[in-house]
Amino acid sequence: MSLDESARKPHERLSAHLAEDLTAVNALIRDRMASEHAPRIPEVTAHLVEAGGKRIRPLLTLAAARLCGYSGDLHVKLAATVEFIHTATLLHDDVVDESEQRRGRPTANLLWDNKSSVLVGDFLFARAFLLMVETGSLRVLDILSRAAATIAEGEVLQLTAARNLSTSEDVYVQVIRGKTAALFEAACEVGGVIAAAEDAQVQALATYGDRLGLAFQIADDLLDWGGTSGEMGKNAGDDFREGKLTLPVIRAIAAADDTERAFWDRTIGRGRYDEGDLQHAMGLLARHGTLGTTRADALRYADEAKQALSVLPGHELRNMLSDLADYVVARIS
Amino acid sequence: MSLDESARKPHERLSAHLAEDLTAVNALIRDRMASEHAPRIPEVTAHLVEAGGKRIRPLLTLAAARLCGYSGDLHVKLAATVEFIHTATLLHDDVVDESEQRRGRPTANLLWDNKSSVLVGDFLFARAFLLMVETGSLRVLDILSRAAATIAEGEVLQLTAARNLSTSEDVYVQVIRGKTAALFEAACEVGGVIAAAEDAQVQALATYGDRLGLAFQIADDLLDWGGTSGEMGKNAGDDFREGKLTLPVIRAIAAADDTERAFWDRTIGRGRYDEGDLQHAMGLLARHGTLGTTRADALRYADEAKQALSVLPGHELRNMLSDLADYVVARIS
Repeated sequence: MSLDESARKPHERLSAHLAEDLTAVNALIRDRMASEHAPRIPEVTAHLVEAGGKRIRPLLTLAAARLCGYSGDLHVKLAATVEFIHTATLLHDDVVDESEQRRGRPTANLLWDNKSSVLVGDFLFARAFLLMVETGSLRVLDILSRAAATIAEGEVLQLTAARNLSTSEDVYVQVIRGKTAALFEAACEVGGVIAAAEDAQVQALATYGDRLGLAFQIADDLLDWGGTSGEMGKNAGDDFREGKLTLPVIRAIAAADDTERAFWDRTIGRGRYDEGDLQHAMGLLARHGTLGTTRADALRYADEAKQALSVLPGHELRNMLSDLADYVVARIS
Repeated sequence: MSLDESARKPHERLSAHLAEDLTAVNALIRDRMASEHAPRIPEVTAHLVEAGGKRIRPLLTLAAARLCGYSGDLHVKLAATVEFIHTATLLHDDVVDESEQRRGRPTANLLWDNKSSVLVGDFLFARAFLLMVETGSLRVLDILSRAAATIAEGEVLQLTAARNLSTSEDVYVQVIRGKTAALFEAACEVGGVIAAAEDAQVQALATYGDRLGLAFQIADDLLDWGGTSGEMGKNAGDDFREGKLTLPVIRAIAAADDTERAFWDRTIGRGRYDEGDLQHAMGLLARHGTLGTTRADALRYADEAKQALSVLPGHELRNMLSDLADYVVARIS
């Protein structure tokens, strides 16, 4: 590996190593999101699919399959499937969150409308299932259908958990499994399945994807509180204002005295905010050390992701996946 | 058949004949819509699933399978799958149409919110796919995934066709295939497939379902214009006010002179309505005889549905399906 090579980010190295496969995935995505009858469909999806996402999920599928020695081309269909499911959930998220920005562009539901976002999302889900069916693998269908159910379940759970101060750490983990880890896990697992890898390897890939997703999402939630540096980024504090119960807050509430609890109840619980509340909240997290323990959890999950890879063949791709686990928590290190 | 029996509606006779199967379907639906983690899910779905729908789609699957001599129990899973897909599309329709009533009750999105409707719909889609996977039939998975894509495509097409005076009859047929006929067709077809019926019979069931769905939807759209009697029901004229291009209007526009065209352009095209417009529109449909030709189309599709049944075994269930085709157009006869 040249110096230049080692300086690149792990997902960029994965993209470069899997460039040919990724080109095939992109061509398939463009082909299958077309609709003979409804030209609005590619209009809406192109917006998202070509908005320069990192294609992390399809890369996981491609890497898992190749790492297990796969030489066919069904992994390309699975990688496109995974991206379609991801894009469909983004479209539906945009509706439900009434969010106005996605990847720095206006969301589809502002450019078009809620109707298009819901229905085009449904279309992508259906096309995703058709792509899976083409692989002829019932095991793959089972894994990805379960992931889709877990995603929807997690999103519903997140709705009911919002502004609910009694949200437990268990519920939080289920929410972030739905939000991120379930599809990371399935993306990795189906790569191993399509390569007919042995069970221990398939299980290892699933564990890797799950822990990578958990580490990624916990790090993301931590960054909303400014990471451990206390420096708030541009969207920092969004979760606080939206009443989302993430790990640092759940732990601070568990450790709260009566006065602190009244603060959390007024703000996150009842959505009444005064000037200076965000700074005060930050102070409470610092007092109870919950940013530090949350960071430790993210690092532990990233470590478990790397450890899971040990039963897989020694291979450049394995190193890149391992580095990717470090990378998702580097933002909070 | 007793006099009493012959007086009952065809779907009631199907329900009675398939009572045991239908009980199993209802039990499976209750079981599979449960979510361990997110109690809101059964709250939202129970509202729809137990709202006393006629269960036409699951009855079609059960009837098709039994008519083809099926003696297993996988048809129960498929019938539940079909109802889940239908319920999911209703939930998503309620969001996108901003409709306030469904089956005489407030819609889920008013009782809860748009977020729950979208996400619970997604959950039901995922559970539907899991149920299908359990049948182990890739052919069934292919048929129902295609139907799901056609449904979403038709709904998007309906969005883009609204208030568009150049909507063609072809586009209209694609819209109503998505809205109704695609799932009727798939419901019938998978019943034959799971029974391992011969190809000609499976094809006949698919044709029956498609034509039944087309006849049903055209009749429904005609009733929005008061059927052929000119007597307007309580929701009559809704399509006119919402700018929906249905067959009677598409044909009246095709035959319009300049003055008539200006009228359609102001009302359906630009959504500007004055008092008396609905009566005037009715007069234009009468002048061009489009209610009559639309009715003739519905009757023709119902007839094609019945004819398709001829290659299927002579059986009580076949008679009920044939009577069902007459029944869906009896409202406009």
